[in-house]
Amino acid sequence: MVHAPLATLVNHQVRLAARPQGLPGPECWQFSESPVVEPAEGGVLVRTLALSLDPAMRGWMNEGKSYIPPVAIGEVMRAGGVGVIVASKHPGFEVGDHVSGGPGVQEYWLVAADQVKRSGLAKIDLRLGTLGQWLNVLGMPGMTGYFGLMDVGQPKAGETLVVSGAAGAVGQTVGQIARIKGCRVVGIAGGPAKCAWVVKELGFDACIDYKSGSVKDGLKQHCPEGVDIYFDNVGGEILDTVLTRINKRARIVICGAISQYNNTTPVQGPKNYLSLLVNRARMEGIVVFDYADRYHLAVAEMAGYLKDGRMKSREDVVEGGVAAFPGTLPKLFSGENFGKLVLQVAAA
Amino acid sequence: MVHAPLATLVNHQVRLAARPQGLPGPECWQFSESPVVEPAEGGVLVRTLALSLDPAMRGWMNEGKSYIPPVAIGEVMRAGGVGVIVASKHPGFEVGDHVSGGPGVQEYWLVAADQVKRSGLAKIDLRLGTLGQWLNVLGMPGMTGYFGLMDVGQPKAGETLVVSGAAGAVGQTVGQIARIKGCRVVGIAGGPAKCAWVVKELGFDACIDYKSGSVKDGLKQHCPEGVDIYFDNVGGEILDTVLTRINKRARIVICGAISQYNNTTPVQGPKNYLSLLVNRARMEGIVVFDYADRYHLAVAEMAGYLKDGRMKSREDVVEGGVAAFPGTLPKLFSGENFGKLVLQVAAA
Repeated sequence: MVHAPLATLVNHQVRLAARPQGLPGPECWQFSESPVVEPAEGGVLVRTLALSLDPAMRGWMNEGKSYIPPVAIGEVMRAGGVGVIVASKHPGFEVGDHVSGGPGVQEYWLVAADQVKRSGLAKIDLRLGTLGQWLNVLGMPGMTGYFGLMDVGQPKAGETLVVSGAAGAVGQTVGQIARIKGCRVVGIAGGPAKCAWVVKELGFDACIDYKSGSVKDGLKQHCPEGVDIYFDNVGGEILDTVLTRINKRARIVICGAISQYNNTTPVQGPKNYLSLLVNRARMEGIVVFDYADRYHLAVAEMAGYLKDGRMKSREDVVEGGVAAFPGTLPKLFSGENFGKLVLQVAAA
Repeated sequence: MVHAPLATLVNHQVRLAARPQGLPGPECWQFSESPVVEPAEGGVLVRTLALSLDPAMRGWMNEGKSYIPPVAIGEVMRAGGVGVIVASKHPGFEVGDHVSGGPGVQEYWLVAADQVKRSGLAKIDLRLGTLGQWLNVLGMPGMTGYFGLMDVGQPKAGETLVVSGAAGAVGQTVGQIARIKGCRVVGIAGGPAKCAWVVKELGFDACIDYKSGSVKDGLKQHCPEGVDIYFDNVGGEILDTVLTRINKRARIVICGAISQYNNTTPVQGPKNYLSLLVNRARMEGIVVFDYADRYHLAVAEMAGYLKDGRMKSREDVVEGGVAAFPGTLPKLFSGENFGKLVLQVAAA
């Protein structure tokens, strides 16, 4: 791969300017430019090709203790992504290697020697999946879905699984794996197009359109034997409704609560949580980073499913580079995205 | 044991007259009398000596699906208790045997042959514990505490356990077992007398008086390394506060929610439940009946602790027989009882 001389290049960046109240608007962001420089000994320089836009980003923008520190004001916004090595002084990476990691919302990512390992920088094999799939089922959302389902949800053939955000990146992974493992799979998604796709393309047994009908009625209809596993990406009313339909010893995987992330009032706690008591059920959180040493196993398994056609994926790719980031992120919270939301930063 | 001829006796009973709105008042109860009759072949007649008054009773008074059917209107109120066999046509029981089971709020409990096993009727050995202890640490509350802690809480030496309702029947069991298993144990209870008792008599490391100070400050002070296990008997604000102090991979045992049982508004859901996600923590319900085949193991273990002095128990015994039931039950919800609330029905 031929690349322009580094000194002629500019790195366009998006930084966090202010912590959001509610939905993150343009006032939260500032644009900056920095020179592109050669990596020092042991480091690499990555050109960002595409960024992963995830609901979790909303949490990273808040102050306060969480599973990782918040993004500081003035810092380049944290983001996972895929890219290509354009300069390397590290023996493990060559110019032209495709990689995944956390470049942040910027066009070039300089990784110092002592950060290569800590940053999660890893080569990716485009024979196993496309760049988009490496941000989706083979990336963080896929790993989240895989380990959340397998380790916390513990599916058994014949059980009924419900997953919210079914057409999203995590949801599509969870539902398809559960189906492969022999579960009855019922999605919850917004709008007829997403619901139809989830059933017809991904093979879910049913999908409930929360925008057009009653989730409670949908669960009664499509989960006649109750719910054994609920994989929750949304929280709020939907979590409360599913709690009324769980079976004895059900597992509720708390992966996210996108309905609550932009609240300016307190989070809505699940008022039906005592269903856990009545049903001896469990509600448990999952953070994907805990499974880093097993990502390769999940990638191998899911790449196999992609290859043999048992698993499909859908990415919603937005063009426009890092400048389009502030306007694209809110699509996640309105549910406008259809599939894994990806921001293309450069041509592959 | 000499007993009056059965035909001369009257069985005084308390029946559920109406489902409560909020705190169960006198309008919920009706008194009845029935003749005392000889058991048929294979059955026994038990004279109730003492009844267990438990927060769970409030749930049994509600209509609707739960872990056991509600008490029907007009039915004798369900209650656990201890008694003595006064007539037996069952080979496993002799007149004079002390037993535990579910007599309900009545003076005599006729158990038909086909109910002996299903009813949970079991002989108790007063060498292992007093009648009061058989309703407390050796009874349902003790079993609830033991299996909730050991199976769901999974304590490890050096961990910090917090238990609410610490001076109650379940709480005192949980805290003392956790201490024996090597945990740092912090109680939450109402009032200085209960807190002092829990620390001085039961050996808890600390106890937070929720009536006189901030639970949050108390947790900061007494759980400097965070909370690994929270055994929740109360729900509401206290659950939410503890959720802000849990450690990674914490276990929250949902045993009850006494603060919410008399609500006339919806249950207060834990608005901080996303702490489960951040901390990869678990919230799980427990119903004691699931462990019936292991009760004897827990009884043997705890009777050993009672004998060697490592475990103490406290019962709050109210006299007055079944007629005192309607006026005594509400003490549980105001926190007036100090120790396991027991209604004495007859002299032992």
